[in-house]
Amino acid sequence: MKIQPSDKRELLKAAMGKIPCDLAVTNVRYVNVFTGEVYPATVYVHQGFVIHVEEKEPAKELNLAKQVVDGENNFLIPGFIDAHIHIESSMLTPRNFARAVIPRGTTTVVTDPHEITNVFGEDAVRYMHDAGYGLPMRQFIDIPSCVPAVPGLEQAGAVMDADAVDRLAKLPNIIGLAEVMDFIGVIEGEDRMMDIIEVAEKNGLYIQGHMPGANGRMISAYLIGGPSTCHETRETEEAIAKLRAGIHVDARESSITKNMAAILEGVRDHTFHDHLSFCTDDREADDILYIGHMDEVVRQAVKNGMNGIAAVKCATLNTAKEIHFENLGAVAPGYAADMLLVDNLADFNVKSVFYMGQLVAKDGKLVADIQDKPAEMESRFSMNVPKLSLDDFRLKAPTTGETIKANVLTYYSGDLSTTKAVTEEVSVKGGYVDISNDPNLCYAMIINRYGTGNYTFGLVRDFGLKKGANGSTVSHDCHNLSIVFKDPESGFAVYNALVECGGGMACADNGEITGLLKLQVGGLMSIDRPEQVAEQSDKMKKALNNLGLPQKNPLLRIATMALPVIPEAKFSDLGLVDVMAKKLIPIFPQ
Amino acid sequence: MKIQPSDKRELLKAAMGKIPCDLAVTNVRYVNVFTGEVYPATVYVHQGFVIHVEEKEPAKELNLAKQVVDGENNFLIPGFIDAHIHIESSMLTPRNFARAVIPRGTTTVVTDPHEITNVFGEDAVRYMHDAGYGLPMRQFIDIPSCVPAVPGLEQAGAVMDADAVDRLAKLPNIIGLAEVMDFIGVIEGEDRMMDIIEVAEKNGLYIQGHMPGANGRMISAYLIGGPSTCHETRETEEAIAKLRAGIHVDARESSITKNMAAILEGVRDHTFHDHLSFCTDDREADDILYIGHMDEVVRQAVKNGMNGIAAVKCATLNTAKEIHFENLGAVAPGYAADMLLVDNLADFNVKSVFYMGQLVAKDGKLVADIQDKPAEMESRFSMNVPKLSLDDFRLKAPTTGETIKANVLTYYSGDLSTTKAVTEEVSVKGGYVDISNDPNLCYAMIINRYGTGNYTFGLVRDFGLKKGANGSTVSHDCHNLSIVFKDPESGFAVYNALVECGGGMACADNGEITGLLKLQVGGLMSIDRPEQVAEQSDKMKKALNNLGLPQKNPLLRIATMALPVIPEAKFSDLGLVDVMAKKLIPIFPQ
Repeated sequence: MKIQPSDKRELLKAAMGKIPCDLAVTNVRYVNVFTGEVYPATVYVHQGFVIHVEEKEPAKELNLAKQVVDGENNFLIPGFIDAHIHIESSMLTPRNFARAVIPRGTTTVVTDPHEITNVFGEDAVRYMHDAGYGLPMRQFIDIPSCVPAVPGLEQAGAVMDADAVDRLAKLPNIIGLAEVMDFIGVIEGEDRMMDIIEVAEKNGLYIQGHMPGANGRMISAYLIGGPSTCHETRETEEAIAKLRAGIHVDARESSITKNMAAILEGVRDHTFHDHLSFCTDDREADDILYIGHMDEVVRQAVKNGMNGIAAVKCATLNTAKEIHFENLGAVAPGYAADMLLVDNLADFNVKSVFYMGQLVAKDGKLVADIQDKPAEMESRFSMNVPKLSLDDFRLKAPTTGETIKANVLTYYSGDLSTTKAVTEEVSVKGGYVDISNDPNLCYAMIINRYGTGNYTFGLVRDFGLKKGANGSTVSHDCHNLSIVFKDPESGFAVYNALVECGGGMACADNGEITGLLKLQVGGLMSIDRPEQVAEQSDKMKKALNNLGLPQKNPLLRIATMALPVIPEAKFSDLGLVDVMAKKLIPIFPQ
Repeated sequence: MKIQPSDKRELLKAAMGKIPCDLAVTNVRYVNVFTGEVYPATVYVHQGFVIHVEEKEPAKELNLAKQVVDGENNFLIPGFIDAHIHIESSMLTPRNFARAVIPRGTTTVVTDPHEITNVFGEDAVRYMHDAGYGLPMRQFIDIPSCVPAVPGLEQAGAVMDADAVDRLAKLPNIIGLAEVMDFIGVIEGEDRMMDIIEVAEKNGLYIQGHMPGANGRMISAYLIGGPSTCHETRETEEAIAKLRAGIHVDARESSITKNMAAILEGVRDHTFHDHLSFCTDDREADDILYIGHMDEVVRQAVKNGMNGIAAVKCATLNTAKEIHFENLGAVAPGYAADMLLVDNLADFNVKSVFYMGQLVAKDGKLVADIQDKPAEMESRFSMNVPKLSLDDFRLKAPTTGETIKANVLTYYSGDLSTTKAVTEEVSVKGGYVDISNDPNLCYAMIINRYGTGNYTFGLVRDFGLKKGANGSTVSHDCHNLSIVFKDPESGFAVYNALVECGGGMACADNGEITGLLKLQVGGLMSIDRPEQVAEQSDKMKKALNNLGLPQKNPLLRIATMALPVIPEAKFSDLGLVDVMAKKLIPIFPQ
């Protein structure tokens, strides 16, 4: 595929010097991602495209440009491409996300609107597509492939099938099928995934993979099934195995998961890195604002021993090829004029950002104009939860005794998202489970918010909460309302607050709200600006720390509770899920 | 694009070891073109595709294969891909060409049927497509883009326009638009080339380039115009400039033109070689049989300082990406099982060739069965020339004097194909030009063979012929009948012989035929087997040497005479062409 110019003949004239071009960026150390060289050059741009790169100092030719920018001896590199991100994870709308990442040098992202599609289905893909269209950056969309992630064991707001993929594939900025998480469905050749992949391929989409921890014949089968990429690579050996098999590996540096070091450890000595790219997957607003986006990922690559030019190539040209674009990812004739000036190839301080030949950010500040563009979906109500009373937040025990056997969802540790179901005896008082004397045991509710009326009420151990309640509509992948609480009053308060504000994250203590982060757009994204969201998020983190959650970033701790693609047991709105056996198990076994 | 398996689910089952696969090749040094590594492995194949590569010695798993081949510690590499060839130049039909190149390790070629399309038009593309289909190798077709090469200054047997491209693009093995030779047409944005390129892109074809000697802004404009590759790179500086600009450079080693050394001289120190591939362009049957095809090109790369693994990548994976194929060019899960066993990575002696998992050649011998498949085009008459008598072979001089001013087509040297028009005084006797006392001057005729009835009669200097006549229907690009002769009787004999046999190459002395190579298929290809054509070609070369042509390979000397894309002047069936001015000039100026 190609980014198409509006008038190819105008570009040809400008390239041949018959008409003046729009822009010349001169006095730069030009980084050539095709050859690996760096040399002085002047880059000429017209109508959004690079039309010529002149190696010699073109004193005479500069009058062929209407505007001349002095690159001040900075390095000129292509704009960064994020190979895989869920914009929703920034808690920003597509337009506000753009405001945050553009100054960091990101000119293209490939976003998977998997989260909001679990809430609003096909409409959500169209919303993300339209909201991200016409911005001073490129937001390509991959169509979510696995909604719901685990059919039959959880209920999302929508079901995506091959027909939906076929319809959506026609939108101009749709380029791929997003992370095919149903790994088993692929390697077993199950109908759902085979049909979706077939339709995607028929529409010319590339197939983005997702296979954490895979090895050997599973990797082979997955590749045969269709996916060609993977951003779920945590171990060195895994990186080696995937690259050897031909998978395009997207080394991930998300807000939570940092995989660069382990991956580079394995592939540093490889002669060829054509199939290595970078991505962020999930990155929160404050991380983007205070630490960075793709600029930070590239920094991490260099810190972990990669040559700076090679790192630039991984973050640009390699990714363009991964997503099948022929004129992206390089600063070369015919390519979209997405380019950065950076002060060096280790720290990558981004001085200027050009998107389609326009200066869109300078010295860390957005200079492009991004208008707000309200959309119906940004005020669509997504809290279709059952009406619950305070009494519903007391866990009835089906026994007349003083204890009862319960399957308790138990975290392996405070750092890990893996959980298992452990059968234990818990206290019962007056017909209700009593956790008051067990500091590491909490109540947990997963409340369907898509109008089915059902919810799960169980117990969770070693979640980290010591008092009060924590609730969130950001609860991968179905994003039902999850609440963990020590006392019913606090749980009920969180429930009420989140229903009232249209979704988000909340915490309470002694029945009073102590923190609220409103995410009105599908219960996932705020309509506020990046700086505001970052500040609210910061407050929320502190409020959660006050309730005992020890993580530096405790916001998504709760989102690991109802994610039945992660071993070994998880909650869903339908009950307690044995992930490995793919079945529901009772909260109170006989 | 992908080579599609007939049943993906069967491959998945085989990959997972649930059913036995067709083949295991064990005990090999596996060359990984993704990472640049070499390690011991066993490759499993099912229904034509690689389903798994096992790194550890899989003693136990071997029983999962119906057939086990011992690789005898040879290197296992992907089958070679020729990025650009005109099969017609081998003088073999597509099926006979396959018989010749498969034992050399070529499993895929991208052929441009430019030559025969100049003769028979759209029908010819369909013939080449169908004749090359279903063989134990893959013959992809790029649609000829410039037929005729120089409209208005020469007349071919057909005109290819955007509509023809649109129709042909639907054939399954059509993958690209072939060498866009009308360089000026592209950079000037002329309608013919813009329309053809637009239709090709709309049909998902890649655009193959052709820009000898280009530099600077011309390269930039050409890239903007659409073409992304080039196999016409002779100089070191040119190679550097093209690769820096993002062009995919196909280093060529044809029978006549050897560009590998000059190209590698420039790019050896580049860090990345993603955009470097190899091709042969034109390679005659005897060269293929006695010296080699892509195996020889890869040998030349190593001889010129390239690492053997990198050379393999250039001849396989890089080319697959150049032509937009996702599962070709590597031996990896999901990829077409095209693979070679070679004894080392310098000489590349090809021990075994597997195409789609089938052993097709062993120890230099074809073992696959290739049935003859006669086609109507193979006996279609292409010699629609005007009826000429012996007297027509005497050059009338429009003067009553003893000399006349003539524009003589003059070769720069015996090695070069460049020619210029030089005005000189030539002898006249009895109203006819007399060259008998001028050993380096010859008569030349270009006779239209597509029914227009016209022909050009002129003079050529320093062609090399010392006596007799040389005629050929292989006369790029229009392939009209070209005859160079010292005496009218020999010229007439050659004319008669070639008309009678349906085209080919002939020479005569003293009015008697001394050599004849019948090329009945469009006057370009023989219907004989490779060994026979090589032998006939050898005899023809000797016969031409006997007439004074000094070249080691004199067959195509005559084909440089009527090629009005090469500077500075050439003949065509319409007259003497000033190539630079794009106009006809008179043979006898006033």
